[in-house]
Amino acid sequence: MAKLKWGMIGGGEGSQIGPAHRLGAGLDGAFEFAAAALDHRPDEGRAYGQRLGLAADRAYGSWQEMLAGERSREDRIDLVTVATPNATHFEITKAFLEAGFHVLCEKPMTMTVEEGEDIVRIAQATGKICAVNYGYSGYSLVRHMKAMVARGDLGKIRMVKAEFAHGHHADAEDADNPRVRWRYDPAQAGVSAQFADCGIHALHMASFVIGQEAERLSADTVSCIASRELEDDAMVNLRFDGGAVGRLWTSSIAIGRQHGLTLQVFGEKGGLRWAQEQPNQLYWMPLGERLQVIERGEAGLSPEADRTTRVTIGHAEGMPLAFANIYSDLAEAIRADKEGRAMDPAADLYPRAVDGLRSMAAVFAVAESGKADGAWVDARPPMFR
Amino acid sequence: MAKLKWGMIGGGEGSQIGPAHRLGAGLDGAFEFAAAALDHRPDEGRAYGQRLGLAADRAYGSWQEMLAGERSREDRIDLVTVATPNATHFEITKAFLEAGFHVLCEKPMTMTVEEGEDIVRIAQATGKICAVNYGYSGYSLVRHMKAMVARGDLGKIRMVKAEFAHGHHADAEDADNPRVRWRYDPAQAGVSAQFADCGIHALHMASFVIGQEAERLSADTVSCIASRELEDDAMVNLRFDGGAVGRLWTSSIAIGRQHGLTLQVFGEKGGLRWAQEQPNQLYWMPLGERLQVIERGEAGLSPEADRTTRVTIGHAEGMPLAFANIYSDLAEAIRADKEGRAMDPAADLYPRAVDGLRSMAAVFAVAESGKADGAWVDARPPMFR
Amino acid sequence: MAKLKWGMIGGGEGSQIGPAHRLGAGLDGAFEFAAAALDHRPDEGRAYGQRLGLAADRAYGSWQEMLAGERSREDRIDLVTVATPNATHFEITKAFLEAGFHVLCEKPMTMTVEEGEDIVRIAQATGKICAVNYGYSGYSLVRHMKAMVARGDLGKIRMVKAEFAHGHHADAEDADNPRVRWRYDPAQAGVSAQFADCGIHALHMASFVIGQEAERLSADTVSCIASRELEDDAMVNLRFDGGAVGRLWTSSIAIGRQHGLTLQVFGEKGGLRWAQEQPNQLYWMPLGERLQVIERGEAGLSPEADRTTRVTIGHAEGMPLAFANIYSDLAEAIRADKEGRAMDPAADLYPRAVDGLRSMAAVFAVAESGKADGAWVDARPPMFR
Amino acid sequence: MAKLKWGMIGGGEGSQIGPAHRLGAGLDGAFEFAAAALDHRPDEGRAYGQRLGLAADRAYGSWQEMLAGERSREDRIDLVTVATPNATHFEITKAFLEAGFHVLCEKPMTMTVEEGEDIVRIAQATGKICAVNYGYSGYSLVRHMKAMVARGDLGKIRMVKAEFAHGHHADAEDADNPRVRWRYDPAQAGVSAQFADCGIHALHMASFVIGQEAERLSADTVSCIASRELEDDAMVNLRFDGGAVGRLWTSSIAIGRQHGLTLQVFGEKGGLRWAQEQPNQLYWMPLGERLQVIERGEAGLSPEADRTTRVTIGHAEGMPLAFANIYSDLAEAIRADKEGRAMDPAADLYPRAVDGLRSMAAVFAVAESGKADGAWVDARPPMFR
Repeated sequence: MAKLKWGMIGGGEGSQIGPAHRLGAGLDGAFEFAAAALDHRPDEGRAYGQRLGLAADRAYGSWQEMLAGERSREDRIDLVTVATPNATHFEITKAFLEAGFHVLCEKPMTMTVEEGEDIVRIAQATGKICAVNYGYSGYSLVRHMKAMVARGDLGKIRMVKAEFAHGHHADAEDADNPRVRWRYDPAQAGVSAQFADCGIHALHMASFVIGQEAERLSADTVSCIASRELEDDAMVNLRFDGGAVGRLWTSSIAIGRQHGLTLQVFGEKGGLRWAQEQPNQLYWMPLGERLQVIERGEAGLSPEADRTTRVTIGHAEGMPLAFANIYSDLAEAIRADKEGRAMDPAADLYPRAVDGLRSMAAVFAVAESGKADGAWVDARPPMFR
Repeated sequence: MAKLKWGMIGGGEGSQIGPAHRLGAGLDGAFEFAAAALDHRPDEGRAYGQRLGLAADRAYGSWQEMLAGERSREDRIDLVTVATPNATHFEITKAFLEAGFHVLCEKPMTMTVEEGEDIVRIAQATGKICAVNYGYSGYSLVRHMKAMVARGDLGKIRMVKAEFAHGHHADAEDADNPRVRWRYDPAQAGVSAQFADCGIHALHMASFVIGQEAERLSADTVSCIASRELEDDAMVNLRFDGGAVGRLWTSSIAIGRQHGLTLQVFGEKGGLRWAQEQPNQLYWMPLGERLQVIERGEAGLSPEADRTTRVTIGHAEGMPLAFANIYSDLAEAIRADKEGRAMDPAADLYPRAVDGLRSMAAVFAVAESGKADGAWVDARPPMFR
Repeated sequence: MAKLKWGMIGGGEGSQIGPAHRLGAGLDGAFEFAAAALDHRPDEGRAYGQRLGLAADRAYGSWQEMLAGERSREDRIDLVTVATPNATHFEITKAFLEAGFHVLCEKPMTMTVEEGEDIVRIAQATGKICAVNYGYSGYSLVRHMKAMVARGDLGKIRMVKAEFAHGHHADAEDADNPRVRWRYDPAQAGVSAQFADCGIHALHMASFVIGQEAERLSADTVSCIASRELEDDAMVNLRFDGGAVGRLWTSSIAIGRQHGLTLQVFGEKGGLRWAQEQPNQLYWMPLGERLQVIERGEAGLSPEADRTTRVTIGHAEGMPLAFANIYSDLAEAIRADKEGRAMDPAADLYPRAVDGLRSMAAVFAVAESGKADGAWVDARPPMFR
Repeated sequence: MAKLKWGMIGGGEGSQIGPAHRLGAGLDGAFEFAAAALDHRPDEGRAYGQRLGLAADRAYGSWQEMLAGERSREDRIDLVTVATPNATHFEITKAFLEAGFHVLCEKPMTMTVEEGEDIVRIAQATGKICAVNYGYSGYSLVRHMKAMVARGDLGKIRMVKAEFAHGHHADAEDADNPRVRWRYDPAQAGVSAQFADCGIHALHMASFVIGQEAERLSADTVSCIASRELEDDAMVNLRFDGGAVGRLWTSSIAIGRQHGLTLQVFGEKGGLRWAQEQPNQLYWMPLGERLQVIERGEAGLSPEADRTTRVTIGHAEGMPLAFANIYSDLAEAIRADKEGRAMDPAADLYPRAVDGLRSMAAVFAVAESGKADGAWVDARPPMFR
């Protein structure tokens, strides 16, 4: 199989996100790094791109230059990843979709619900892939949870409980550190801090696993460090369109938690528990039986789990491989598209523009409810009401 | 030291609570089981009492008989435990307090807030001890958490997160089983099921540890099994009088959790995590340092922890010993009273009538808020507003 | 049921073992503390006994006095616990057995194998109970493991792996502390330190659970702190009489382990794992299936487990209750003896003189093999060869 | 930086090891897959190589053809990985070293000690890198353990305890399955099965971390499934050249363990515990303090840990990234060699031919001791005696 050509916007020297995407995209050998505009400073971006092995004419100085360059090539890139500052995602994603490129956009996909709806419409109109990087949904056992729910192992879902709590912004003396401060500044971060940064990962995971979308929510948002205008802790109650109740907690002041993204799902016939920090075990209790440990890589799991397991049972897989699974889905989607065939349904799980849109609607709903003492508000984007 | 004389009302043959109290009261040898009215059926109660070793004239047929009998004796009991059905707690506790007895009442102390205020006033007026059995507060490491907060190890408390979730009422086919059903029937259980049954333990523990009382709350109560009139799952957000935010989840449909009472406390200077199912370890992360494991029984803990540890480090202690610690507190309180001295402050931690009252106020507040779509309501009893 | 009368030798004021036995014996209300010789200093022993509530004429000044006093009484004690310094166990146990008393002896039962054989013969000849306090065998889930093996859940046992490791003697600067030093001094401790102190608990548990006795062993004994004449770490390989292989590690220099008594059992049809520090969960993997968690107190366990569980599932039970289960077995054995009936087979699990003897044989075998570079030696007492 | 050119021998279509190496070598973008002889069937190997993107003239039909082809090229490969059946490792590794290539050889490096000594001498003589793939030594926290020991955090090491236990060969009915059977057949596997397959990983890790080499050992080897000629379980006691005692257990019949490679290190000043299945946490107890959790990726670890951490704290890294760290070391070693500079000392940790040789000496020593009832034997290769 010929390698697909992949490009990147953002992720310049010294960023964390750049190496992560290059690792994820390159991991299976499906994508070849072919073009990039890595830095908002044209010269730095061009130089760094060439140091990373790009041809000089495809190490671009800006995304506009890259768009112009790539659209005119025969061997244009098959997929572009947008990993620029949040406020620019909309504009760049829109431009590349409209030019006929498949796009993987970092979260948040947009800064407003309206922009999100625009992207969804453009993706539909162009028929191009617009994926959004909820990378945690790439974990093999997260996908197995989804498969278990879909095939009815849990019966009707009653409750989903999601958490994404860490303590990395708990130090009041560090609150004015620019690295931390911007996240709590409405001028830079928008209407929400911790929910927009971490909570939407938890919400996406909940929706992804139970196969239901949030309809309504009530939020209690607080700033535990008083100088913050935006919340550093939020509790969100939800109602999903399939009848499930949701409870979602996110915090950045939870000292003792490192990266505590966890999911619990309770149905009529059993309960599941999973934690991102120990992602290779899934705890499952069928109603009336014992708690049992499902291991990543064990025989007889779902096709969705099998497809996303890379090493044998008992060997941990971690975040970079989960991330690579999103790229693997996209490689399959792009190839199926090129070959005019249906894609492997077990790969058809990458997060999409509608997910990015729904997250943005949830962010605004949380902010609105939080200001209104937890009043229940519609969590759906207008186009899905 | 002469043994104190102890009596019991309720806890007849076949009950779970009876043996638990007898074990707890007897464990240290401080109390001698001296009198009881164990059953609402007089003959059964008398016979069972004698089989348990009571003298024939102190194996009473009813609590009224016992009250009359004991109040006229020189060697009257020093403490009476009330472990009858919930609806009778008020009447019996009131009668014994007014007759000058110290009382340990099972939770819930009363069925209404008004009754709770009555008990508090009576206890104050009589100067008698009125304890309420929040037995989980007897765990050594729970007390150590309280001591750590009190001495400032965590700095100002920002957030307390409590859970009490189990899955023992998750089976829809078992929902009409009388053993389960009464808890969800307002005629028998009052205004709340799961919060009143389990949630108040979590709330008491949160208040106990952080040394703050709930002022306001907002509740999302749901019945995951549709036939239930009362909630089987509730999420409660709280504000405490010392400025802490609270998040409390309780559920009886959480398949995979056995008796999941857990507490997390986040302050300016560190975070704590404790779980009732593994009560001999406490996880503590000082701000900017590593997570560390505090072991029950380790050298150099607080006086409150030392007093309530009975076996050496590395040997588990469980619920029965936690329960016994409440009785141990009461023995010290009664002896100090008899001897006209101040009690050991490290024992002065048993839950009191005001705690029972505050729980009842919280139960009604949760029910009210739950019906009002999560509106914030006052969580305090009227007498403390 | 009338209470049984219980007496104690040793366990004077300030000891740890005294309160532990009184708690264990008293916990179910089956035994009444009726007589004691608590201290080798007669006056102190008599005074402390009376402070603990004994009648003046049964608060004895020495074990000889107690023996004389009790054997002449109508209401003589039903059971005597011997908790004196190790070197005196043999003499006292022998004397009381010969005088017709049931005895519970602390471990080690004797200091030599010959003495151990004497005790076994005396117990057989007199028909009296001679129990030895391997208290960890009282845990409910340890008994359930034994039941699972006995009923064939694991098939033929291939391997048993036991550990008892702690780090409480790891500090070289503390090695001369008298509290620590005597254990490593042959004049006081005999031929073995860590194996005799902790290893025999692990060996008893292994034998108890798999229902097989050690036949041969090879030991690697080392003194990690050079000043010690006796071992502070030992690895022992074993062969059991039913064909199982054993691997037993014990250490007192394992910094990071508190009281690490663990057991793993591997059979043809499944594997078990249990740890004393978290004694309420048992990990069980049937061949070809998933690891599952057996909870103490869950429905449908063995009669042996049911009999020794005291509080409902999800509430921890700890060491004191395990210890009380040994006393509960003995109460049933004594009552059955008095009533001339067979005892409940689920209670017929208390450790016996033969277990004490086998431990002593293993201690000498470990010492012998350890000196002989791990040569395989007979682990059995001569009377069982 | 120009990519290094990498070649592979073995790892043909359908193998597990092939994709693992390609993932590991490719992960950082340091190596470009440039040449291979993937299959012992020439046509299959050539075709598969081309499907994987190799140029037709570098998709070789045999290792001999590849050696001839590559040695004559200007742009010859910088490193060749040997992942063929065990019995061919020696011959191929020798040939490529002698031809001036750097080699990474899968374990076991050779089938005999003599061959191992040959390889060590050849590597020394040629000055070429001969690495051996003990991939578990690539984990970031394993390297941090080594750094902690080296800088003295634990003081003098007293004891190292290593385990590598799984239950994947526990099914007696599956024992004749060819996939399993060959491992226990001396004609195919040599003198040892489970120790040679898994035990040497544990031994390498122990030596790697404590910086000491095994001098003597005593082994108890057993075949729990009777039809096996070679051991499926072994317990090995060791003495290391720096004075540490070793205890190593390996098993393939341990039902309930998946891939249980664990290490505990006990020194004068503290103890460490690490488990391969949860590789992102390291448990550390300094003498007299509390157990604390070291997280992969936390600030302020050693240079060795920092160099091998790829994603931020709280995100798991797993086996594939550990494996890639070995390739990363090699890339640095090769580049330093090319550039005539000293290599980064934090990368100078890849396992070497001497490690492969020492493993082989240990394998023969274990087999010899096992047959001689655990007699202590020299564990060193003759050249190091």
